[in-house]
Order: sequence, then C-alpha cells, then structure tokens
Amino acid sequence: MTCAVLCIGTELTRGELVNTNATWLAAALTDLGFDVVEDVVVDDDRARIGATLERLGKAVRVIVCTGGLGPTTDDLTTDAVAATLGVKVVRDDASLEAIRRRIERAGRALSPSNMKQADFPQGADILPNPVGTAPGFGVTIGGASAFFMPGVPHEMQKMFEEHVRPRIRTLATRNTHQVRLRTYGLPESLVGERLAGVEEVFAGVVIGYRAQFPEIEVKVLARGASHEAARELCDRATTEVRARLADIVYGEADDSFAGVVGRTIRNKGFTLAIAESCTGGLVGHMMTREPGASEYLLVDAVTYANSAKTRLLGIDEEVIRGHGAVSSEVAAAMAEGVRRVSGADLALALTGIAGPAGGTESKPVGTVFIAVAAGTGTTVTEKHFLGSRHQIQTAAAYAGLDLLRRACG
Amino acid sequence: MTCAVLCIGTELTRGELVNTNATWLAAALTDLGFDVVEDVVVDDDRARIGATLERLGKAVRVIVCTGGLGPTTDDLTTDAVAATLGVKVVRDDASLEAIRRRIERAGRALSPSNMKQADFPQGADILPNPVGTAPGFGVTIGGASAFFMPGVPHEMQKMFEEHVRPRIRTLATRNTHQVRLRTYGLPESLVGERLAGVEEVFAGVVIGYRAQFPEIEVKVLARGASHEAARELCDRATTEVRARLADIVYGEADDSFAGVVGRTIRNKGFTLAIAESCTGGLVGHMMTREPGASEYLLVDAVTYANSAKTRLLGIDEEVIRGHGAVSSEVAAAMAEGVRRVSGADLALALTGIAGPAGGTESKPVGTVFIAVAAGTGTTVTEKHFLGSRHQIQTAAAYAGLDLLRRACG
Repeated sequence: MTCAVLCIGTELTRGELVNTNATWLAAALTDLGFDVVEDVVVDDDRARIGATLERLGKAVRVIVCTGGLGPTTDDLTTDAVAATLGVKVVRDDASLEAIRRRIERAGRALSPSNMKQADFPQGADILPNPVGTAPGFGVTIGGASAFFMPGVPHEMQKMFEEHVRPRIRTLATRNTHQVRLRTYGLPESLVGERLAGVEEVFAGVVIGYRAQFPEIEVKVLARGASHEAARELCDRATTEVRARLADIVYGEADDSFAGVVGRTIRNKGFTLAIAESCTGGLVGHMMTREPGASEYLLVDAVTYANSAKTRLLGIDEEVIRGHGAVSSEVAAAMAEGVRRVSGADLALALTGIAGPAGGTESKPVGTVFIAVAAGTGTTVTEKHFLGSRHQIQTAAAYAGLDLLRRACG
Repeated sequence: MTCAVLCIGTELTRGELVNTNATWLAAALTDLGFDVVEDVVVDDDRARIGATLERLGKAVRVIVCTGGLGPTTDDLTTDAVAATLGVKVVRDDASLEAIRRRIERAGRALSPSNMKQADFPQGADILPNPVGTAPGFGVTIGGASAFFMPGVPHEMQKMFEEHVRPRIRTLATRNTHQVRLRTYGLPESLVGERLAGVEEVFAGVVIGYRAQFPEIEVKVLARGASHEAARELCDRATTEVRARLADIVYGEADDSFAGVVGRTIRNKGFTLAIAESCTGGLVGHMMTREPGASEYLLVDAVTYANSAKTRLLGIDEEVIRGHGAVSSEVAAAMAEGVRRVSGADLALALTGIAGPAGGTESKPVGTVFIAVAAGTGTTVTEKHFLGSRHQIQTAAAYAGLDLLRRACG
C-alpha cells in the first residue's frame, strides 16, 4: 500500500532545519509495511499546502503530515485542510478544555492564540496530544486517509505511536522484518567489509548502514512471502551478522552505549565515580540521560581548573606541575582521587585537549588520557582523536565508557 | 524566483538516511535569493521521477536534483529524464575518458557499469564531477532549468558550487534579508502574542517561529525591491521586535544560551563553580560545548549520591537527613559548598526530581531547587517543571543559567 509524508514549514524549505521528521516517519511507515513513494516538504503557504494535499490524495492511500499546527500566525495547516475539503473550521470544546488544563498546570492562563489550537476542519477525527498543547487530526482527502500532527519531533512521535499507527496498521501487509544492531569500535568501511557477501548468501536480505558518530548502526532488512517468513529469514541473517561483527555489537534498536555500560555496572553491584576534564561532563550526562543512573553513579567531578583538581580530588599540585594537567599521571591521580573521596568501587577519569586551541607538538589537539581505577589498581590509556571539538569530546567519552565496560567484563 | 529541490532514492523514502542534501541545497538556494517552495523525495521509480519532473517543470523556474546517477541497476535518473524529454540516451566520449582516467588512477579497470555513467539525455549540458566518477547534467524541463547531480553529499556540494551556482546565480535577485533572534523565557504562544500586528505595521515582513525546547527562535524575514531595501526594512522591524520581546532575547543567529551566559560571567571577570544533582551535568556540558569555558568554569561537581554531597561538598549530613536531598536547604548548602571548596566567585547548584520515578505528594516529579551563591549571599528559587525526564532536566538547566545571568547583571 502506497503512502506519502508531507512536512510543512518554511524553516524546512529555507534549509534552516534538517528534516528528521520525514526520516523518522518514513522508517516507521516502512516498518508497518507501507511503500513510502514520496516525501514532500512545502513552505507555509495555504495554496501550496492545499494543492499538494489534493495531488497526494489522488496518488496514495495514506498521507502523514507534520507541522503548521502551532499557535502562531505562520501556522496554516488547519485552514488549508479545511479549504481543500470545502468545510468550515470549528472549535472543539473537549480539546480546548485539555489545552486549558495543560496550560494552567504550567501556571499560565489560556490565551487566544492557544485557543486556535482547538480548531479543526469540521468532521475531523481529533488525535489527542499526550505531551503538548497542539492536538492532531485525521480527515479523508481524495482516496487517502490523511493525518496531521505537530512538527515538534517528540510530540509527533508520541502521537504517531498512540493515535496514527493503530488507525493505519491494518491497511498495509507487512512482509518485511528488520533488526537494527548498534555497534561501536570500527569505522563504516570496516564494518561493511566484515559483512561483505551476506546479502548474496541470504537472498531477500538487504544490509543498511547508518553512521551516528562514533557509532555505526547496521540494519538487517529481510523481505519474504509473509511477515513470519521475513522474520525467520531476518533471524538467520542476523545470527550471521552478529557472528561477523563479534564484540563491536553492544546492543539493538534504541539501546544507548552509556545505558548498556551503566546496566553492566549496576548488574555487577558496583558503584562508579567519574572525574572529567576535557569532556566537560559529557560522560556523566550520557549515563544520566537514562533513569536508574543514580543507583550506581555517585559523583561526576568535572574539574576544569587545576585548583579544582587539587582541592576537590586531593591531587598533589606537584604532579600537575611536573607532568602537566594533560598527562597519564594526572589522569591516574584524578581517577584515584575521585574514587577515594567518593568511596566508589570503580572510577573513570579523562583529561585531554579537545581543541580547537591548546595543542602542543608533543600533545596535539585530540590527545586524551583515560584512567580506570578499581580495587585492583589503575590503568591509563592514551588516545589520539581527530575531528572537531565536539567529535573529540564524543570519541573520548565513548572510549572511556568502553574501558569501563571492559573493566567490568 | 521559485525553485524546487528533488532528491531521488529509495534509501530516503524508506527513512534509512536523513536527507541532509535537501537542507544544504535549500539553504544555498535561499541564500542566492530563490524561493524554495518545495523539497520532494521520490523513490527509485522511473515513472514517479518523470511525473515529478513534469509537475515541477510547470510550477517552478529552477529544479535542483540529486541522486540516481550511480553505476548500479537502481540508478534510473538519466533514463527517466530522457523519457520525460522524449530524447535518446547517448554516450559522451569526453566524460567516458574522464571516468576511465579516474578509475585507472584508483588502480581499477573500467567496468560496463561505470560506462553507464557517461550516458546523458541527448543535448544535455554536462556538468563535470571534480571529486567523483558520476558527472551531472542540466536540461530544460517545461519552464524550468533542471540540474542533476550525484547524491553523495561532498560530490554534490562541489558540483553545485562549481557548475550549478554560476549557471543560476543571475536568475534570482536576492531581495530578502532575515534576522534570527534567540529567545528564552516565554512559551511560543506568548512570544507570538507580543509580536501580534508587527507584520501589519511592516509590510513585506514575515515573522516566523521555531520551538527548540525550551527556546523559541523568532525569524524576521523582510522582502524588498532590492537586498539593500530588504535589509533596511528588516533592521527597522527587528528593532520593533526586540523592543517588544525585551529581555527574553538573549542573542542572534547561532548564539547559544549557555554560551551567552558564560561570556557574561567571563566578561565580568568572575569564576564559576557548579554543583548538580538532578540535571546530571547538563549545565556544565552546555557551558563547555563552546571553547573558552575553561577560562571561568572551575568545576562542575555532579553529586548524585548523598554521600558525594557530604564528602565532596562538605554538606552536613544532618541537613540532608532533616530536609531531604531535594530541598531549599540542600540546594543552598550545595552552592555554598562547591563555592567554598573551589574558591569560585559565583556558584550554581541544582537539586530536584527529574523523574520518571521519585516524586512524592509534597515534592512531585519536576520539583527543582536552584541556588546561586555569591559573596553577597545565597538565593534559592523553587521551580516546578512539566514533561519528560529530559525536558525537566533541560528546563532546570536553562532556569539555572538564567538565574546566573541575572546574578551577573
């Protein structure tokens, strides 16, 4: 069954924003078994929105739209849909109440512009917004079921999962199955070389790659006579792929590297302390983005200044003066210091030069010393990363997490 | 002058790849003065490529396309264009020679699939590829000049700069100017209300909004008889917009809130220490994403465990036991503690419940205490945020930065 994705917004046609909504929706619709034949973006122009909807209403069976449902004057989607259908825009009292409650809970009063978000084309099927003020709606345009959702990604995703997916899932026949493996440790070209020939061995399987620095996601997509057949083929191919990739696979689907390392530490019953310098708290931030981190993470001491390293972590000033703040010795002293003051089982410390300035001949930008301290002793690893400041910080944080994972293993 | 971007590829319509080419081209075309009215993505389907080109050839004056020029069987763009124009596909000897030289330099032999990349619709204007094997080409479709380039981003960008930009730059007159203002402190609906009527007062100005939680970006886009006139109009409108938004505007274009607050602190000659609990290092991470943070930020002590609060920051255990870790008293003690141990001028501390678990009747999820300690004393602010864990953390970090900014002011 064919479908199309329509994203509405001048910020997109002006190139001010990468259109991640289209990608997310295309993947979700493909996963349901739809053939997404067109992704289209138009600017906030009533006539163009209308003409595009009419065209797609003749071409496909399902249209999924985002954007233009906000409270401001450039949000024109509802009007454009009503004009296309030749119906009035009417206010929905239940939606208005939900918006009012949400806004009052935030300690504000309902404003006229918020009230606009309770307006819908007459006869529309209203889709509640579980996490924001703007509800969505569904209508029929030509031969297509069309769904309209806000452009804010997490609101759109939640609304799609809760209200759109259940309405369209029976329309498509799903004859594909996909597994996404998350890998860390090899560049895309080498990951690809490890998997050379897999598609020839497993007819009907396509291997896809997606680089999300420094990770490579590997997608194993199988197509069969039925979903069951596709799943069975996918399972067999995934077993082969996992065997070839071995220890660079750390998880599946939406696992995060920090989350997986954190769970490993927690499952061992260990507590962790971190001391960061060049990574500026990134390691701790990655670990605490997921709930449950407070069960094992006691402290992350982000000590930029040498004075903070000595005063908070008890590092001997002489060590810093003698070897420099970016040195194997200081990394070890930071890890041992934060382990001692926090009383944690395991400690990770990172010190380095993230750039763009601060590099020297012997310690160029990208030099990072990573120390892991445990009851059994301290190990320091020296790394040299390339790229922007952000890439160096990210690469260092991943390397630190990887060393922690191995220290638990 | 209107234009459209067409990206061709099933990897895009399946959502396997974020379409950064569309964003890059839309920004480049907007910068040249074109109105990009549509970005469209279609799968590798000859009929759909042809139908889309015919439609766009009637709607716009310039069409810029990427993808489908590769050597494999699913690369159908050249065939589709020739069929649309009703012309033959012919081989270009000079292009074939260039491809042969490029492939032989890489130590390989020319294969039949490579030879296909020297085929073009008869009469096309060939665009050499300075960095890859696939040349591009230009043709006229309906009323539009259409340009076809490879989908590999760095090849496309180079070809656009060297061969497409010079061919189209005289077609558009740049008659727009835009200023982007970054705001924090009000929701989108209230920002919009403050700017009600601005578009009516300044004819030719369009106000746009983009929510990037918890910020709202306000775009003032002016259109005039010339770029100069547009700039002048934009400046006048921006002065009015700034006056109406007053202190919620913190910067322009690509400024970041943490960067602006950091510069304020640095310019005052202050040093800063941070103690975080519920925000998990986010405040420090936001400040250190930009270079220069190490000049004022001495330490960010992310103390999750109560033991870390007492051991690193010297907080009296009785205070935690008596009031709870999430309390005004502990926030104040954290700020004063990290200020004392680090020797910083200013200190910020945050303690709260980011959720999803951990809330109580008197302190529900979203409760955050934020303390700022300075030589003149300590101030604690109690906040209640709504949303997901990530939103609560982000909202708390922004609120903390805002309190710091005001403490400097």
